[in-house]
Amino acid sequence: MKEIKKGPDQEIVVGINSATEIIKQRPHSVKCLIIDSKKSSQRIKDVIAKAVKLKIRVSKLEESYFTNNFSSLNHQGVAILCNKRSQEGENFLDEILKKEKIFLLILDHMTDPHNVGACIRSAAAARVDAVISPKDRSCHLTPTVRKISSGGAELIPFIVVTNLVRTIKKIRSYGVKVLGASQDGETNLTDIDMKGNICIVIGSEDKGLKKMTSKNCDSLLSIDMPGNIDSLNASVSTGIILFEYIRQNKRAH
Amino acid sequence: MKEIKKGPDQEIVVGINSATEIIKQRPHSVKCLIIDSKKSSQRIKDVIAKAVKLKIRVSKLEESYFTNNFSSLNHQGVAILCNKRSQEGENFLDEILKKEKIFLLILDHMTDPHNVGACIRSAAAARVDAVISPKDRSCHLTPTVRKISSGGAELIPFIVVTNLVRTIKKIRSYGVKVLGASQDGETNLTDIDMKGNICIVIGSEDKGLKKMTSKNCDSLLSIDMPGNIDSLNASVSTGIILFEYIRQNKRAH
Repeated sequence: MKEIKKGPDQEIVVGINSATEIIKQRPHSVKCLIIDSKKSSQRIKDVIAKAVKLKIRVSKLEESYFTNNFSSLNHQGVAILCNKRSQEGENFLDEILKKEKIFLLILDHMTDPHNVGACIRSAAAARVDAVISPKDRSCHLTPTVRKISSGGAELIPFIVVTNLVRTIKKIRSYGVKVLGASQDGETNLTDIDMKGNICIVIGSEDKGLKKMTSKNCDSLLSIDMPGNIDSLNASVSTGIILFEYIRQNKRAH
Repeated sequence: MKEIKKGPDQEIVVGINSATEIIKQRPHSVKCLIIDSKKSSQRIKDVIAKAVKLKIRVSKLEESYFTNNFSSLNHQGVAILCNKRSQEGENFLDEILKKEKIFLLILDHMTDPHNVGACIRSAAAARVDAVISPKDRSCHLTPTVRKISSGGAELIPFIVVTNLVRTIKKIRSYGVKVLGASQDGETNLTDIDMKGNICIVIGSEDKGLKKMTSKNCDSLLSIDMPGNIDSLNASVSTGIILFEYIRQNKRAH
């Protein structure tokens, strides 16, 4: 079996959708498309055609390569070797704010790489436009975060900003509703109108939203918990909120 | 400052609701109620009164005890030292199935303690009646699971069963709708009717639902993901599904 060698600045991302998207978004970062030699569906033929057109190398490997390396992921017999996606600077946000439909996620000083990774994975699944994090006292795109994100970090922009309050003000100035998640939030998640342009803000694992962050949100929302525990893991809260947005905006997608 | 010593078979759970519930459910397991000496709300007075009535020792400690030990949790200045809740056997399920409104969570061979812990935490927040796991090739109530569950493992029953398919058949025989979560599920989560008695089944991180599990569910449901990644962390999926149940059953609670 041929070996696929991954350099320190490279990442392997699995799945037909992910591979197709990376080829579309940043073809020059792609080193190789890897296909399970036994697979030959139309969708796989399509992604191979796209790679060939762009002169990207296509490697056909045995099924065991996928089961040995990606058994925990829905790989569909497709993987892509690409350069790691870099973190983006503040000016990248300006581009996103020109879009017609905007959906953003801010992590307000989240520090646990497992949580940040799982949040990025959920954000990629929910088609968030970008994940935003402040420069200081926050976990960014570390190797663990990339791994836990299961390819999410290669698919969606991760923007690091200097001043989160200034960024929130800027986002609001574009008509985006900024919703902070807080146990003390006055509105229950499912009662809030999430149609339109939305930015969700999630606080840190230990302290929740910073005071200045809360103050600058349009509304604070809480997740209704009927049980005897009234907090969730930060990445679970994030998933619940992002997918409530998806539920409410279903017809719009 | 007085020291609170936790024995190997003991656990400390924080929060007013959690402490109240543990005093109510299993008062004999409680060793001590711990209160931040600066707090004196009506809710705190109520939980102290309950403890005093049952001759449970109440320790007033400085705020620093809480910030030093539980800064990442919404402790509200209340903690309870109790014996660890044991795993339950199959006969415990019979008691739950006699209830009028049933809400269960099955983890079908989940093996990662972080995922199992986060699932139990979400289950406790969503007021699930019990979490059920098969005896073999599954992660049960390990110390890591208890820690990650943030007290959830002390609050809701964790039932270990020998034969999961037999258990699912039994649950269905009580008129409970058994819904398996699967990427290949034919129905989207938000289109499925979750009113009434429900049991959610979540598959393992690497292989999803076992074939025999899927076969024995009433329906398979999938989470609609508009993005370019089509899988979520197992505990995030669990949270999204449990809180969709809460959303649909809101008026019933």
